[in-house]
Amino acid sequence: MKFTLLKTDTSSGARAGLIETDHGSIETPIFMPVGTQGTVKAVHQHELRDDVKAQIILGNTYHLYLRPGMDIISRAGGLHKFNGWERPILTDSGGFQVFSLSANRKLKEEGAWFRSHIDGSKHLFTPEKVVDIQRTIGSDIMMALDECPPGDSDRAYASKSLDLTLRWLRRGWDHFNATSPLYGHSQAFFPIVQGASFPDLRRKSAEFVASLGAEGNAIGGLAVGEPTEVMYEMIEVVNEILPADKPRYLMGVGTPVNILEAIERGVDMMDCVMPTRNARNGMLFTSNGIMNMRNKKWADDFSPIQEDGPSYVDRVYSKAYLRHLFIAQELLAMQIASIHNLAFYLWLVGEARRHIIEGDFSSWKKEMVERVSRRL
Amino acid sequence: MKFTLLKTDTSSGARAGLIETDHGSIETPIFMPVGTQGTVKAVHQHELRDDVKAQIILGNTYHLYLRPGMDIISRAGGLHKFNGWERPILTDSGGFQVFSLSANRKLKEEGAWFRSHIDGSKHLFTPEKVVDIQRTIGSDIMMALDECPPGDSDRAYASKSLDLTLRWLRRGWDHFNATSPLYGHSQAFFPIVQGASFPDLRRKSAEFVASLGAEGNAIGGLAVGEPTEVMYEMIEVVNEILPADKPRYLMGVGTPVNILEAIERGVDMMDCVMPTRNARNGMLFTSNGIMNMRNKKWADDFSPIQEDGPSYVDRVYSKAYLRHLFIAQELLAMQIASIHNLAFYLWLVGEARRHIIEGDFSSWKKEMVERVSRRL
Repeated sequence: MKFTLLKTDTSSGARAGLIETDHGSIETPIFMPVGTQGTVKAVHQHELRDDVKAQIILGNTYHLYLRPGMDIISRAGGLHKFNGWERPILTDSGGFQVFSLSANRKLKEEGAWFRSHIDGSKHLFTPEKVVDIQRTIGSDIMMALDECPPGDSDRAYASKSLDLTLRWLRRGWDHFNATSPLYGHSQAFFPIVQGASFPDLRRKSAEFVASLGAEGNAIGGLAVGEPTEVMYEMIEVVNEILPADKPRYLMGVGTPVNILEAIERGVDMMDCVMPTRNARNGMLFTSNGIMNMRNKKWADDFSPIQEDGPSYVDRVYSKAYLRHLFIAQELLAMQIASIHNLAFYLWLVGEARRHIIEGDFSSWKKEMVERVSRRL
Repeated sequence: MKFTLLKTDTSSGARAGLIETDHGSIETPIFMPVGTQGTVKAVHQHELRDDVKAQIILGNTYHLYLRPGMDIISRAGGLHKFNGWERPILTDSGGFQVFSLSANRKLKEEGAWFRSHIDGSKHLFTPEKVVDIQRTIGSDIMMALDECPPGDSDRAYASKSLDLTLRWLRRGWDHFNATSPLYGHSQAFFPIVQGASFPDLRRKSAEFVASLGAEGNAIGGLAVGEPTEVMYEMIEVVNEILPADKPRYLMGVGTPVNILEAIERGVDMMDCVMPTRNARNGMLFTSNGIMNMRNKKWADDFSPIQEDGPSYVDRVYSKAYLRHLFIAQELLAMQIASIHNLAFYLWLVGEARRHIIEGDFSSWKKEMVERVSRRL
């Protein structure tokens, strides 16, 4: 993996760059649609490529490990071959899902024991094992196993949790370096900064992470309940330490405004289920504000979803028709809204990149934050 | 609407024809995907056009009348404008749904009273009103209001029901002829043959229907519980009477074998929810047989869904991946299976047409009945 920093904004931390992987290039800043179970919900792979214009998608190690399982993924020749997505894939470590989804999880020094949310079966994720799993998945970028403490964790818990995460990180990193890709394409390993909402813990974590010299670095444990301003502060604290010549990935964030604020603070990569999950509930993000498509006000609005929108769905379907589909609980509603929201997120980061390169990011961002926050 | 009979098979009743409407041509025999609430479930309009190669789709008067309602459809400029489907649309009369879905329905001479299955509100469908509704929807082909008695109705009930249907038909036909299209394109009105499983009632009904001289004629009240052989017999009885120079539409039928048997007996148009409903449950129809995609046997079958299948989904997704999507309850599973099944049905009727024109329909049909009936 190669990262080229093309431009850093003069009046903010915003950066434009290019990541090159064996499955193609990624223009940063980038938003990565989440394909939890090997599919971005309700969106065909060719729609992701041609309509959404996704450059990289996520897969979830926890989900893929449980279903279809590593035997199937391995025999398919990795996730790219299994789901037919030929561009880059990033996989998380599964740690976050172990803590949010599974039952009876137990943290030990060796790793995290948990029971499957599907059938109750018992499993152990160790820092080494999640590297092996991600070798089998064949993701272009794999993530270290970490513990993600709640946003309101006290200092004692956060500190103890961070120490475990750092020990796990060392083990995962060593195992990554001792193993090789399985399918002939390179894989990068990103360590993750934790430390809850404590600047000193975040600094300690970022310094350790930076010291590894990995091909990219991630910021985890944010957007998990802490105030938004605290999240922005933690990003600033961490990005002062993470190397500028490596991509920085802010995990699980967020709203369009969060995305813009993170980019301004030097973040290069983001992912979130929000555009797809909210789409399935009828919420559309647009460059003119937020629309709840179940609202009665759209019932007789026969204008296109968004005349100047980034995807064809914005022009071929009307607001009234989309509202009807949501009220009638039709699957096509979720399909249209998912494509729209993802295309909007990709448009948003693409525009951010363009304005960083053109040198007017800050004024554009200020106006856009106001626009995308409106309720239509 | 214009119907041209291009070829009649020498050794069976099978026919190849062409229907021309103001929204484009329809090559018969044709299968019509069902778009109940103004959308064919889980399929985008451009996918219907380009991947499924649908030439005409259905809308359901009962559903559209209740939701979004005629005010919205009218102000949209009709259903074509509302949902963006620019090719022909056929609407049923709503009668079938009144009897199968609504609560507290009451049949009177004037029409059918019913309560909405959505909110319990009370409504009346008369033969005249369903013409008006279909004028508002703007379907290219509208259907007469009828009562569809159960497949095991006794003769007394079936006869009484038929008499009511015939009186309704006369009223609907008169009202159709006394009213005009609303959106500048022509609309045809198809009367429906009823008569349950009684040949003499079917004949009586078909003779009355034929006497109207409508632009096309329909056969209703079949595939509602009677034995398959009885259904085929009724089609034969009716098609001896319905004029050969008008298209014949067999309503709500059926399996791939039913489709082939109906074509052999001189049917030109068919519709059914089976390809889409069964798709959503994981059942795929193919030219090699039926596949239940939830079956464990597909878990490690990494070959394409159908190498020589009629749609791109057959080649870009593997059986193992599609099976994973169904087991993981992913929306994409329903999307892929719906496109596949509809594309297969359209392929099947297209092949039937080709073989009718080439003169070897009977031998092709015999082989195909055997093939599509297999369980894979």
